[in-house]
Amino acid sequence: MLKSYIGGGDPDHIRIRGFDLVEDLLDKHDFVDVLCLAILGEFPDQKMRRLINNSLVTSIDHGLTPSALATRLTLHGAPESLQGAVAAGLLGAGSRFLGTVEVSARFMQEAMNALQGVSDPTDEQLRQLADAVVARSRAERRKIPGFGHPIHVDGDPRTARALRIAQEEGYFGRHFRFALQLSQALSADVGRPMPLNATGSKAAVLLDLGLSPEFGKALTLIGRVAGLVAHAFEERKRPIGQDIWNMAAAASEAGEP
Amino acid sequence: MLKSYIGGGDPDHIRIRGFDLVEDLLDKHDFVDVLCLAILGEFPDQKMRRLINNSLVTSIDHGLTPSALATRLTLHGAPESLQGAVAAGLLGAGSRFLGTVEVSARFMQEAMNALQGVSDPTDEQLRQLADAVVARSRAERRKIPGFGHPIHVDGDPRTARALRIAQEEGYFGRHFRFALQLSQALSADVGRPMPLNATGSKAAVLLDLGLSPEFGKALTLIGRVAGLVAHAFEERKRPIGQDIWNMAAAASEAGEP
Amino acid sequence: MLKSYIGGGDPDHIRIRGFDLVEDLLDKHDFVDVLCLAILGEFPDQKMRRLINNSLVTSIDHGLTPSALATRLTLHGAPESLQGAVAAGLLGAGSRFLGTVEVSARFMQEAMNALQGVSDPTDEQLRQLADAVVARSRAERRKIPGFGHPIHVDGDPRTARALRIAQEEGYFGRHFRFALQLSQALSADVGRPMPLNATGSKAAVLLDLGLSPEFGKALTLIGRVAGLVAHAFEERKRPIGQDIWNMAAAASEAGEP
Amino acid sequence: MLKSYIGGGDPDHIRIRGFDLVEDLLDKHDFVDVLCLAILGEFPDQKMRRLINNSLVTSIDHGLTPSALATRLTLHGAPESLQGAVAAGLLGAGSRFLGTVEVSARFMQEAMNALQGVSDPTDEQLRQLADAVVARSRAERRKIPGFGHPIHVDGDPRTARALRIAQEEGYFGRHFRFALQLSQALSADVGRPMPLNATGSKAAVLLDLGLSPEFGKALTLIGRVAGLVAHAFEERKRPIGQDIWNMAAAASEAGEP
Repeated sequence: MLKSYIGGGDPDHIRIRGFDLVEDLLDKHDFVDVLCLAILGEFPDQKMRRLINNSLVTSIDHGLTPSALATRLTLHGAPESLQGAVAAGLLGAGSRFLGTVEVSARFMQEAMNALQGVSDPTDEQLRQLADAVVARSRAERRKIPGFGHPIHVDGDPRTARALRIAQEEGYFGRHFRFALQLSQALSADVGRPMPLNATGSKAAVLLDLGLSPEFGKALTLIGRVAGLVAHAFEERKRPIGQDIWNMAAAASEAGEP
Repeated sequence: MLKSYIGGGDPDHIRIRGFDLVEDLLDKHDFVDVLCLAILGEFPDQKMRRLINNSLVTSIDHGLTPSALATRLTLHGAPESLQGAVAAGLLGAGSRFLGTVEVSARFMQEAMNALQGVSDPTDEQLRQLADAVVARSRAERRKIPGFGHPIHVDGDPRTARALRIAQEEGYFGRHFRFALQLSQALSADVGRPMPLNATGSKAAVLLDLGLSPEFGKALTLIGRVAGLVAHAFEERKRPIGQDIWNMAAAASEAGEP
Repeated sequence: MLKSYIGGGDPDHIRIRGFDLVEDLLDKHDFVDVLCLAILGEFPDQKMRRLINNSLVTSIDHGLTPSALATRLTLHGAPESLQGAVAAGLLGAGSRFLGTVEVSARFMQEAMNALQGVSDPTDEQLRQLADAVVARSRAERRKIPGFGHPIHVDGDPRTARALRIAQEEGYFGRHFRFALQLSQALSADVGRPMPLNATGSKAAVLLDLGLSPEFGKALTLIGRVAGLVAHAFEERKRPIGQDIWNMAAAASEAGEP
Repeated sequence: MLKSYIGGGDPDHIRIRGFDLVEDLLDKHDFVDVLCLAILGEFPDQKMRRLINNSLVTSIDHGLTPSALATRLTLHGAPESLQGAVAAGLLGAGSRFLGTVEVSARFMQEAMNALQGVSDPTDEQLRQLADAVVARSRAERRKIPGFGHPIHVDGDPRTARALRIAQEEGYFGRHFRFALQLSQALSADVGRPMPLNATGSKAAVLLDLGLSPEFGKALTLIGRVAGLVAHAFEERKRPIGQDIWNMAAAASEAGEP
């Protein structure tokens, strides 16, 4: 038996998590609702809906990034396959870009395991844990993901915003509190400001809402597909794939290393 | 110069179609709004937003389909790469499944080219065109996509629903009218009911809203990524990839053909 | 029952087309032999082996092409997944590049259907067919793939070479003869030399050897994977992914169209 | 400047590592030669050529495995895209299957770092290192990859063969010697025979030849593409994609977990 509890149906009825697509979902629930139902098994509440929408919107597009370039170059060779071009762009969402919220959330989650039995950690407990984590990372020469910003050395405005929303919606919790302690400990350790950045604050919010690090990555993938489609359509109308190729060829230098 | 008019920015500001991500979009527009902005260059009106949500929701999941199976089998071999598993599932969204709205819309669009100069075609004109199209398809032994249903021989309830929405929202137009004529002509030709099915009605609605066939496919891809993520997460918790492999191996018969 | 006649086995024995991997194949047959066995069901003879090797070698790499760029940009984001980077590069092997031998062979194959019943067509028959095909392509404004070269207007040296090999090995046949007639008819039609190029001659050879157009594409994919791996490894040692991104970002111009 | 030292050229001349494709490579070197040239920068000697051929041949096909199933299911939905179907199958070559030689080689390489300064380690040194590695793996509850076999508990015949070839060709070296010590230490530790298996012996050979773990994975990818093409072509002629879908649907059980 292959047990799967997401969806199913016959040619006539499609069900998602037990809900009938036509009777219960269409025109009654929007995409974000049913996305959450399919992935997590339940509809989102207001604050989760806000988080999901903002995560999806943030992921859509950041210009001519590697993923957009891969989509356009692939479509240039295989203009008949939209799915191939989009898949090519998606494949770059790995450990270095587009997956960083997951990496940062996983780091915080592992660090917070030390306080697993503590129902409501004090600021002092979080501070001590932050110091210990910073010391260990320094010893292991591991970078702590989610901190620092090339421009906003004194604080990323997106972090301030995420903090305000978390407080408004009542889910400012142990992970966000820990992340702020981590920023202080890290700044003291390296001797310059290491503010919690947008990636780090998204990771903290995700965990405070009880969501998994991988759910953060999932939202990135879903949102980015919309942006990659936008690049594919623009490439069909106003192609630049050939120009990118020419540019790379002109700048390339062959020969022996 | 590489001209791209979708998005861009620096480490500090991200813009999509000229809107600032943090100032103008987050918390002010939901994912469907910004998806439409990125792909089409403008925010959707109420009826387009309804169409987009319903298309996305419809595409999310249909159970253990080939795309879900491909995602699960891929994750079974490469559990560390969510993006690879999702990309594998997406690659099956071709001409046979998951891309059929595009195929059907393209067919209608080409057929309707014959009435390009006619601002408001009469029923009689649409009927004559439908007869001609059916006759030509028969001569070329080409199947007309978007018609017929294994169960609902007298009419697909989703078509009735799409028709009602189109009328309510005021965009019941030439393509839907033509599709209904095509159903009659086709039924007369083959001698059994060939109702406009869900695929065909989605295609007609798309065109009546002034959208392109490929936009229909784009929505399918975006919606399906959510479902593929759901399968990948379920596979991590309650794996069936190995069972599918065992089942295929047990049922396989090697030897000479 | 899932009938498959390629390979199979248990943890102990692997079989390909009935041959035992360890007993019959390893150290007794090289990759090209077993590739041919797996795909076509039999070992290649000397001339097919020569064709396969040359096709594979030709496909390996052409420098910083779109497929190599897509592989490098994907690896830049997901350095942990070699298979993802290679898959991204492969996805651009569509109708416009890297699949053109298949397109050209398919064109010749369809055109030659007109002489299907003729066991040994005369030059005159081939000439008449070529004229008819050129006339029809002109009427349908369809480009005939496999002819013309930006530099070698008087004849591509790779075509001369392919011709010589075909004659040496004794498989210069109806397709190559037809391709040469097509070149003459086309040149007369457009009023400037339209020599059979490397793509066109590969297509003709493939068909004269009794192979399918899609087999030509298969060889392209297999050969190119080796080149994409080479780019991925070089990217790990001497990365240029970030430079390509910077270059594209610097050359990009946002704004309204 | 984008520095790349693999290939390049103009419409007229293609070069790979400085060799002219038409003048120097075609008909003079086979695919394995040029694959090695492109990836490693030099032609293989006799023993490396033997290793590469055997690795490629071994990887081609193991029957209806997850990668073959993913290729077939993807082609079922998108029959027009061979590259998409092959890419889907390739994406499962991750950490669990099809990438295991790399994982095993990486393990041995890291373990052998302890003897980095020792030009010619004695058996006793290798034995002590093996004991230490087994003890550490037990403490960290980490499985040592490349050992044990469900059937051949007293020794995998492919290992015996690999050993014989290594001795014949004169590259039986420190990694193979260490792997044999590791097998003894591991067997003593778990109290049942843990023979060096085919994966482990391939990993040892790779390292003794001075090749990198990732080169092992590269050969797996290249070889497997040939097998995936074979499955795609068989799927076109004698499709089983729909049967796999039906089988999964029939065996699936929906409902709440």
